[in-house]
Amino acid sequence: MTTPASRSSPVAPGGTIGILGGGQLGRMLALAAARLGLKAHIFSDDAEAPAFQVCAARTHGDYRDASALAVFAATCDAITYEFENVPAETVAQLAPLKPCHPNARALAIAQDRFDEKSFLRSLGIGTAEFAAVSSPADAKAALARTGAPAILKTRRLGYDGKGQAKVANEGQLTAAFASFKSAPSILESLVDFRFEASVIAARAADGQFAAYDPPENLHEHHILRRSTVPSRLSEAQVREARDIARRIADALDYVGVFAVELFATRDGALLVNEIAPRVHNSGHWTLEACAISQFEQHIRAVAAWPLGDPVRHSDAVMENIIGKEAADWQALAAHPGALHLYGKPEIRPGRKMGHITTLSPKSQR
Amino acid sequence: MTTPASRSSPVAPGGTIGILGGGQLGRMLALAAARLGLKAHIFSDDAEAPAFQVCAARTHGDYRDASALAVFAATCDAITYEFENVPAETVAQLAPLKPCHPNARALAIAQDRFDEKSFLRSLGIGTAEFAAVSSPADAKAALARTGAPAILKTRRLGYDGKGQAKVANEGQLTAAFASFKSAPSILESLVDFRFEASVIAARAADGQFAAYDPPENLHEHHILRRSTVPSRLSEAQVREARDIARRIADALDYVGVFAVELFATRDGALLVNEIAPRVHNSGHWTLEACAISQFEQHIRAVAAWPLGDPVRHSDAVMENIIGKEAADWQALAAHPGALHLYGKPEIRPGRKMGHITTLSPKSQR
Repeated sequence: MTTPASRSSPVAPGGTIGILGGGQLGRMLALAAARLGLKAHIFSDDAEAPAFQVCAARTHGDYRDASALAVFAATCDAITYEFENVPAETVAQLAPLKPCHPNARALAIAQDRFDEKSFLRSLGIGTAEFAAVSSPADAKAALARTGAPAILKTRRLGYDGKGQAKVANEGQLTAAFASFKSAPSILESLVDFRFEASVIAARAADGQFAAYDPPENLHEHHILRRSTVPSRLSEAQVREARDIARRIADALDYVGVFAVELFATRDGALLVNEIAPRVHNSGHWTLEACAISQFEQHIRAVAAWPLGDPVRHSDAVMENIIGKEAADWQALAAHPGALHLYGKPEIRPGRKMGHITTLSPKSQR
Repeated sequence: MTTPASRSSPVAPGGTIGILGGGQLGRMLALAAARLGLKAHIFSDDAEAPAFQVCAARTHGDYRDASALAVFAATCDAITYEFENVPAETVAQLAPLKPCHPNARALAIAQDRFDEKSFLRSLGIGTAEFAAVSSPADAKAALARTGAPAILKTRRLGYDGKGQAKVANEGQLTAAFASFKSAPSILESLVDFRFEASVIAARAADGQFAAYDPPENLHEHHILRRSTVPSRLSEAQVREARDIARRIADALDYVGVFAVELFATRDGALLVNEIAPRVHNSGHWTLEACAISQFEQHIRAVAAWPLGDPVRHSDAVMENIIGKEAADWQALAAHPGALHLYGKPEIRPGRKMGHITTLSPKSQR
């Protein structure tokens, strides 16, 4: 059996990085790999995956198709994922064949909101109050833990606000749980935050760690609207945020870029909302405001190259282009910022179609 | 017959930009097209063209294969070239089918050093002294025009110092001419320059013009070694350089990015060395030091989109990675600058394998 090679030798130029997932994150990862003279092989279950337009090799297949995965792995020197909900059996098949990052444990923890918050608490990292809801009988004790109102979320597979409901009492909680078809869920206390922020950081296999300046994030309808650097975090909070990220990465023996979503509360605390074991929408501004973007940083980590300098040379505001906002592309083309469109064949409500980053000279903060 | 559509409507996202040539310039153009949600179709006569690794569609064929070109053109919404030595019959075939930029006249002028310098003089733009050498009988008069020593160059198809010889007298001149197999040539006076610089600029079909800050360029063995912004050009010289570029572009009704290579002489004059009707090695630093790179700017012009802002947010030094310098890729990977490797399968002497751009805070000059 091949050694999993979590401490593997660097992938030489001309080598191939396999990427599971072909959305905009996979696309921007493929573009970053190309900068470094590396080829990207995209594996996606979507025949029209945007990343297929920019890669050296492509496989259209199911993420559970063992024979397609084996052929894919044979062409790759290292493998990564653009999304966290990779089936566990997919990782279990690929990991013995080629270096795969992030590792199975990091993915498993990020896939389950309860395990994720339990993991964070085990590291002494602050989160909202939370309790598992596995049956209607858990409702009362869970509400006693979180207070009301609170948010019920499915433990798995939620994103952009899907599988979430605000509940004010036991009746609403059991109704929401029923509406989730009794899927294992987590009840979380409402955090009265001043603003949201995130840390985008990278860890290499040898423990090297690099964090970008944390952006401040604004969500609308549970979808990221805008990220701004610098944020309103104090210098001490920036240090604290980076320290949180570092402790998470070290505990998971993490390799690659990841994001830690944070609430900055009114009393100055930082609470972790969730971990994204991948490049992150709130880090897209690094494409213009840093010489080494989050996408290149992730490729560097996965390819076992030294991490790049995450220094930021400019202030930046990144604004998402969502759904039908993309229809007016001629206005977007005339926008003075740096435009990115993701090559998605169809506009759908809530779909992330692109983003625009506007730079300004670096403030002294 | 289809209208040539030199004032064409913009290419919508999802559309395809055809690029003739698959080297590093075609590769970086394809990557820039992808940012904007445009697909790239690369046509190259090299089965291992680096740009094939990053494009949505690829054609491996001869630039004079009329049927392959017709199929290629049918898939494209606009067409451009990564190199100036496109056969005239190729352009003649493509231009009636789809918007093609730069236009045939710009290519023809840039393909012939004598026509190029004659064109520049017709605009009142300074160049070295020069004279055509079509036969050994031209040697004496040519030397009388340029003085000695001078440089004999083939009128066509020279690059990176190929097809050039320094000559001190009539005998050396006729010998060099014979060594060029009597190819039509041009004799140019030696310019005792203080330094070299270039203007990278873009013109849109509606006449919109945008120039990047001119870099200062250092050549070694006729190959670009390093470009630095800002250059030692005075503010007045920067204005003059941009004005030269604008006059050239307007006279050619040029659409796209082009470079004007300049000598800054010891007495403060700017003389044009040559015009490159394409993105240019001395503009690679725009990838990191500007929000809109020369590559995106060219795609914007070719796609009939508005030009982007060429403002530079940082100082930059771009260093080429040439020939066997690429062999030590592990040291390059650890370099603190932004590394670009071109995906070329083989290292050869003098071959441009990649480059590194190092940013620093913008100086007040």
